[in-house]
Amino acid sequence: MGIRGSFPERRCVYKPGTFLNGFYESEPIIYGEHAYGFAKHRQHMLNVTDPTGIELWVDDDVFDLSTGEIEGYRRTLDLRTGCLEREVTWTSPSGKTVFLRTRRIVSFLREHLALFTWECVPVGTAAYFTIVSGLRGQAPAESGAAAASDDPRVGGLLTGDPLVLRKKRIGERTGTLRHITRNTKSSVVCSMTNDLRTENRCTQWPESTLTHVSHRYQVYAEPDVPVALNKYVVYFHSYDAESKRISGLAERELTRAEEEGPEALIAEQRFYLDEFWHNSDIRIEEHPMLQQSLRFNLFHVLQATGRNGRTNIGAKGLTGEGYEGHYFWDTEIYALPFYTYTTPFIARRLLQYRYNTLPQARERARELRHRGALYPWRTINGEEASAYFPAGTAQYHINADIVFAMRKYVEATGDLVFLHRQGAEMLFEVARFWLDLGCYVEGKGFCINMVTGPNEYTVLVSNNLFTNLMVQDNLFYAARVARRMRSNHPDAFAAVAQKIGLSDREIDDWEQAASRLYVPYDPGRGLYPQDDSFFDKDFWDFKNTEPYKYPLLLQYHPLSIYRYQVCKQPDVVLALLLQGWRFSMEEKRHNFDYYDALNTGDSSLSSCVQSIVAAEVGYIERAYEYFMKTARMDLDDINGNVKDGIHAANMAGCWMSLVFGFGGMRDYHGVISFNPRLPSRWRRLAFNVRVHDSLISVDLTHHGVTYTLLEGGVRRIVHETEEIELQPSEPVFRTVDLPGRAAQKAAARAAAREPLPEVARHGQ
Amino acid sequence: MGIRGSFPERRCVYKPGTFLNGFYESEPIIYGEHAYGFAKHRQHMLNVTDPTGIELWVDDDVFDLSTGEIEGYRRTLDLRTGCLEREVTWTSPSGKTVFLRTRRIVSFLREHLALFTWECVPVGTAAYFTIVSGLRGQAPAESGAAAASDDPRVGGLLTGDPLVLRKKRIGERTGTLRHITRNTKSSVVCSMTNDLRTENRCTQWPESTLTHVSHRYQVYAEPDVPVALNKYVVYFHSYDAESKRISGLAERELTRAEEEGPEALIAEQRFYLDEFWHNSDIRIEEHPMLQQSLRFNLFHVLQATGRNGRTNIGAKGLTGEGYEGHYFWDTEIYALPFYTYTTPFIARRLLQYRYNTLPQARERARELRHRGALYPWRTINGEEASAYFPAGTAQYHINADIVFAMRKYVEATGDLVFLHRQGAEMLFEVARFWLDLGCYVEGKGFCINMVTGPNEYTVLVSNNLFTNLMVQDNLFYAARVARRMRSNHPDAFAAVAQKIGLSDREIDDWEQAASRLYVPYDPGRGLYPQDDSFFDKDFWDFKNTEPYKYPLLLQYHPLSIYRYQVCKQPDVVLALLLQGWRFSMEEKRHNFDYYDALNTGDSSLSSCVQSIVAAEVGYIERAYEYFMKTARMDLDDINGNVKDGIHAANMAGCWMSLVFGFGGMRDYHGVISFNPRLPSRWRRLAFNVRVHDSLISVDLTHHGVTYTLLEGGVRRIVHETEEIELQPSEPVFRTVDLPGRAAQKAAARAAAREPLPEVARHGQ
Repeated sequence: MGIRGSFPERRCVYKPGTFLNGFYESEPIIYGEHAYGFAKHRQHMLNVTDPTGIELWVDDDVFDLSTGEIEGYRRTLDLRTGCLEREVTWTSPSGKTVFLRTRRIVSFLREHLALFTWECVPVGTAAYFTIVSGLRGQAPAESGAAAASDDPRVGGLLTGDPLVLRKKRIGERTGTLRHITRNTKSSVVCSMTNDLRTENRCTQWPESTLTHVSHRYQVYAEPDVPVALNKYVVYFHSYDAESKRISGLAERELTRAEEEGPEALIAEQRFYLDEFWHNSDIRIEEHPMLQQSLRFNLFHVLQATGRNGRTNIGAKGLTGEGYEGHYFWDTEIYALPFYTYTTPFIARRLLQYRYNTLPQARERARELRHRGALYPWRTINGEEASAYFPAGTAQYHINADIVFAMRKYVEATGDLVFLHRQGAEMLFEVARFWLDLGCYVEGKGFCINMVTGPNEYTVLVSNNLFTNLMVQDNLFYAARVARRMRSNHPDAFAAVAQKIGLSDREIDDWEQAASRLYVPYDPGRGLYPQDDSFFDKDFWDFKNTEPYKYPLLLQYHPLSIYRYQVCKQPDVVLALLLQGWRFSMEEKRHNFDYYDALNTGDSSLSSCVQSIVAAEVGYIERAYEYFMKTARMDLDDINGNVKDGIHAANMAGCWMSLVFGFGGMRDYHGVISFNPRLPSRWRRLAFNVRVHDSLISVDLTHHGVTYTLLEGGVRRIVHETEEIELQPSEPVFRTVDLPGRAAQKAAARAAAREPLPEVARHGQ
Repeated sequence: MGIRGSFPERRCVYKPGTFLNGFYESEPIIYGEHAYGFAKHRQHMLNVTDPTGIELWVDDDVFDLSTGEIEGYRRTLDLRTGCLEREVTWTSPSGKTVFLRTRRIVSFLREHLALFTWECVPVGTAAYFTIVSGLRGQAPAESGAAAASDDPRVGGLLTGDPLVLRKKRIGERTGTLRHITRNTKSSVVCSMTNDLRTENRCTQWPESTLTHVSHRYQVYAEPDVPVALNKYVVYFHSYDAESKRISGLAERELTRAEEEGPEALIAEQRFYLDEFWHNSDIRIEEHPMLQQSLRFNLFHVLQATGRNGRTNIGAKGLTGEGYEGHYFWDTEIYALPFYTYTTPFIARRLLQYRYNTLPQARERARELRHRGALYPWRTINGEEASAYFPAGTAQYHINADIVFAMRKYVEATGDLVFLHRQGAEMLFEVARFWLDLGCYVEGKGFCINMVTGPNEYTVLVSNNLFTNLMVQDNLFYAARVARRMRSNHPDAFAAVAQKIGLSDREIDDWEQAASRLYVPYDPGRGLYPQDDSFFDKDFWDFKNTEPYKYPLLLQYHPLSIYRYQVCKQPDVVLALLLQGWRFSMEEKRHNFDYYDALNTGDSSLSSCVQSIVAAEVGYIERAYEYFMKTARMDLDDINGNVKDGIHAANMAGCWMSLVFGFGGMRDYHGVISFNPRLPSRWRRLAFNVRVHDSLISVDLTHHGVTYTLLEGGVRRIVHETEEIELQPSEPVFRTVDLPGRAAQKAAARAAAREPLPEVARHGQ
């Protein structure tokens, strides 16, 4: 659940919003010109019943920060407890002063629960308080019939009000609103308990309007005698409009929460987050602003993450309706590294979501007349929801990204149970898809035509470097896993093979296609073309493009963008990171130079990757610049669109920038290496990473780096070029070498483990 | 105006439809995912007030062919008068026999008028007749709120009823319905006069319902005493909802028509068509079925054609709502050759339509941040209405097609007035656009990237052969016209140059770009690739594609089609035709072989072109097959979709198949040559073509061909390799040579006049 930080008194400084991960409305997509196989249904995460409202009147004055006098004000998001707290001292227009303290948590442990505490004290004088605490059922107009935005990143809006009120109930202390979605007839119930505590005289009565339920309290408050209200709110939803069950569940959950009481709930939340921060926290000494943004980002990533195997991470988390709440490759390429190396049980849940939607991916492949499985470019329920296939379905690379992330998870955790029971099935079905999608072209090898890479400023091309390398990685891995399973875990293998009708011949075919996979390369210039046609295009005229013309997608027709060498995010650079072992340091630097110059940065996904590769090739200043953009993107609203929601992938990318970028960590085929580079502005960078059962602390200063095994048994890592065996309670200190040499050696080592096929590089 | 051949008694054997060329409703296009520069508004040709209804009751039985007995029936479309006539002898369920004769013309000379005559005689017995003749205002549901079709060729439907009744008036003999369009507030008025003539006793009264106006007649008909009704209907429309003017115009037009009377109107129609057939008729001796379809096709082309400079030819003519009534390149490439060489004043009007919409084309170029003018892929009002740009706006070739057709018109007619006053301005603005769109690529020359050629089964490619050759033709022509005008017609040139701010430098740039234009060629195989990436694609698996899977676009996702070498229509073959002088006969045959094998024929535009080129390269049987498909496509409903309207371009293509195909006519830079080939099944093929002020008859038998100058002065033509000077009243007879040699020589001669630039062919 996500609740935007709007004020309880509901003067709209912040647009209110409450979102339940996985709860959406669907309707047919209307196409101006339809074609076979276009995604059929939109999915739109809904802004549900607003639970935040607690309104106050002091005598006859409504409490509102825009009237009266603010004597004191403090608002804090405590990242240790996840508690949003506000303290206000306010004098009403008629001169009464009150002190008001509100707290709010959205529980991580109880995924259905939010808690609001509210306390008000009349300062030095008596006052009549009227307090109204309720649920506001009317979804704001933003998710209603308003005109659709022209900004493709915002996404269209549903026609008509998506939620229809089905039931409204108000009791003495509790209230409930139950809605169903207009088209899909899913139901959502929101219930609250209001618990008012005061030593003052108090009368109360329930109220309801067409769309709201609330409790109204009238309190004659003696001077300095506080009035406290605890409001417990729960949400349950079901895909069945008639489900009675969820109302019972809501009631029970409310009772359980009230039995605990607010302080215990906050304490249990802190307990959960203590564990999270123990694994995930990154410290940059003496930079409080930066430190704040790191923790703010990681907290939001956690908040955005579906952790039950049936939900995932929306591009905007649960903070806004941007991108309609859809899940993209952002999860696998940007968020999973963070979880894999800090909190792997969450990584596993996110991968399970993909496994659970494998039937839809198979169905989609069938619809497009392919074998295997094709994951959707954007989705909530596992079905393709992209209404613009050139930058949607054509981004086949999402299939590769999912498998790549799974491979990293399995290699970093050793979780063979997951691999054998779920992962292998996805892996093999995806490998099948690639074999069916690609084709052998004379003089080139196995080619993948008509795809769009991550750089959405180029579409429908042949042999996108990023895609081809990722597919090659997929296919080699699929063949290896299949063979190892067959010999080492024959029962597990037989179960999968039988389920999907896998033949031995297919496994050979995967390996052959991988070995013959075509990798575009221009030996004359030492450059990897983004795709077959990229170098034949003209350069974008950056000089004459005024700053207000960015992002280009809002000012130029796709055809005008696609015809140039210009990047929304340079996917060749992303390939340099994810498939880094294949490239020499020389190549990395040379290709980074070329593509960095073509980068508009119009995608929020680009800056963290650019930062990491810049750090690797020794451009520490450039890396720092990109990193700062990554770190402060949402807190400083650098892109000017945080009103539509945070940039979840960038926030997770912030972790990558530090650990993979300045920390220089790489995981090539399961070997963890570090090649750290501390920016001169910082005194110290420290973080932990988890590999198998070990938790390793990495503590970097300008003197050198200290590796400490905090948990788990002996673990081998590589520092620059040296292999180190970490022993429990034996920190290892190393001075830091010059960049370049070390990374090269790490890559050479990786290549030795999975040899680069001879045909991997061709001239055009 | 077009009126579908539905029955007056309105039992829906045929779906009724009445369409006014250029009258449409518009509404915003909703995109699932929007981007900058996407076409903003749909344009949808409207099915307006239905004027056809004349209902009859005989005693108490309604006249309806599904009841009673049909004693005699004949229905004829007389192509000499354009009169649709029906004669029915019918015995009612209660045993009364009547003879009924109806005629209907939609006037070519009076573009607002339709005439319905109706005559009924009780055979051998008296009968009470009730006759109701009216206007039915309710647009049928098909243009209303019904669900949009999944077939992209049908096009979406407007939301809600597009026409709103504004005024309804019924007088003693006249009736009027006036509607406005819901969004754009254009108004359309439909008025009728009913003129009943009989010697029987008759009473009559006007009637009106919510949506209809009509006159009801009750007649006691004596045995064999006829009852005749003449119904005159006129339509006027205006872009102003409040226009009073059109009602006055309608009244006047009705009066004028009634003064003439039906027989005079039919006679004047015949006079108009006599002239048309004099120029256009093609005779194939002893093949009545074929002869019927040729004339049926040409009649429908004429019927479909807007002839006032403000309208054009919809893809389905005025016979259905398929493609929403939009105008495409079909006009320039398929219909204009027919008009240019038979009825050039109509060709001029069609080109004027493009000139009149030049401001919108300039605006569109600006919107896409280009110089010059960019014509819309599909439109009614001159604004882009394509909601799927990869097979819409990306088909930049429409710009080239328009200029190409204009060049042919000017060269075939010598109409320099048109060229200087209107054509040159279009030509120069289009040339400017090309210079801005393309770019110089090292080692290749002037390239045009990111386009879609006429084969819509491949999109967004670089250097589409067809596009590049047509652009080269445009640019050379633009430079030549500019220079000639500058020296020979300096005032005309100065006027255009000043209006559009043309510099001399630009003219040089056009010529340079044309000379350096990149033409993809694979010397190893002697093949012209459709585009840079085409030969890298896999072949479509035709063997395993069952017949019901065609057209592919209804069964495969665009991405699944685009990744193969497969053609909706082979545009390389179209280039072999339109730019034939550039290719040797060897090349033509070799490339035809290659691309013909890749052709699905899923576009109705392909068979006529395939037929022509097949005939040229000597595959007379193959040419004949394709021709038969062309000739009978709509009469035999070969594609199964004639219910959505006729295929206007294919119908005009039928003329091309005969004249350019079996007649072997070519016009290379103004030199008219013939290289005829008569299929062995035919005895004789004869047609006329108009060049400048000459009308030339070409009469082909197996003995040879006779050229006769029917009108105009001395005219040089080329027969095979021989230049002939035709003199008035001196027919020239020639035996027919073997194919191949002659065409080659004709091409060589053309090339001599406009030399092939040296860089025109490159290896890849």
